[in-house]
Amino acid sequence: MSNDREGLIAANEELYAAFEAGDLDRMEALWIGEPDGALAKCVHPGGEFVRGVEAVLRSWALVMANAEDLQFILTDVETLVQGEMAMVNCTEIILRPGAGPDPFASSHAVTTNGFVRVAGRWRLWLHHASPVMGAPGGDTE
Amino acid sequence: MSNDREGLIAANEELYAAFEAGDLDRMEALWIGEPDGALAKCVHPGGEFVRGVEAVLRSWALVMANAEDLQFILTDVETLVQGEMAMVNCTEIILRPGAGPDPFASSHAVTTNGFVRVAGRWRLWLHHASPVMGAPGGDTE
Repeated sequence: MSNDREGLIAANEELYAAFEAGDLDRMEALWIGEPDGALAKCVHPGGEFVRGVEAVLRSWALVMANAEDLQFILTDVETLVQGEMAMVNCTEIILRPGAGPDPFASSHAVTTNGFVRVAGRWRLWLHHASPVMGAPGGDTE
Repeated sequence: MSNDREGLIAANEELYAAFEAGDLDRMEALWIGEPDGALAKCVHPGGEFVRGVEAVLRSWALVMANAEDLQFILTDVETLVQGEMAMVNCTEIILRPGAGPDPFASSHAVTTNGFVRVAGRWRLWLHHASPVMGAPGGDTE
């Protein structure tokens, strides 16, 4: 199994595919389940920590209900794997095809996603997304 | 050495102590160094990813130069340790004693800090802090 970076990248992409599909069942299948559900933590952009897998899934239901037709393009995807724990950092380019006069209106967020491997499968325990403010394309580097 | 949760908590607190002291040498001692400096990633609230330990330390020099007299109170500190990798999630209550008419003016941020253990010592490779918007004390849970 080694590091299974391909499986990790696929699990990370599944988060955004489930979001785009508005599919809470796929979201639940991705997140860590019981008996480790207390590990789950989620920060939506501008939000507080949501803690525990039940509250996290409720928060996703709410976010997905209020964000139809969003599309995500991931850039700068980087991974760090250690044993049964892995982190993925990426930038989310968020396209809102239906939003306003510009069909390509977009914003972006920066994200830390944390996974643990349970029975050979990467499960999400942490999603921390934060808004990027200031000039579009601005970079502090 | 086991999980060394005490050392991890201490390393997490050192980030904020170094920030309060405006001490870039302490900050550098906490962050991962070469040859692993490319792992370093940092998101200041509202910012993009800053990548690589040199750029990360430059960003801290800038942040500390523009944020004198800040004080941090950490709450909801939670840890996850796996082998030589560990994550700390916490809420930062940020006090600005000199800011405006209210000497206790504060804001808060939510943070994911990632550590790796190098030669028995926890070193920071990831700091991802994000602003909490909306009503003070508001919570999405």
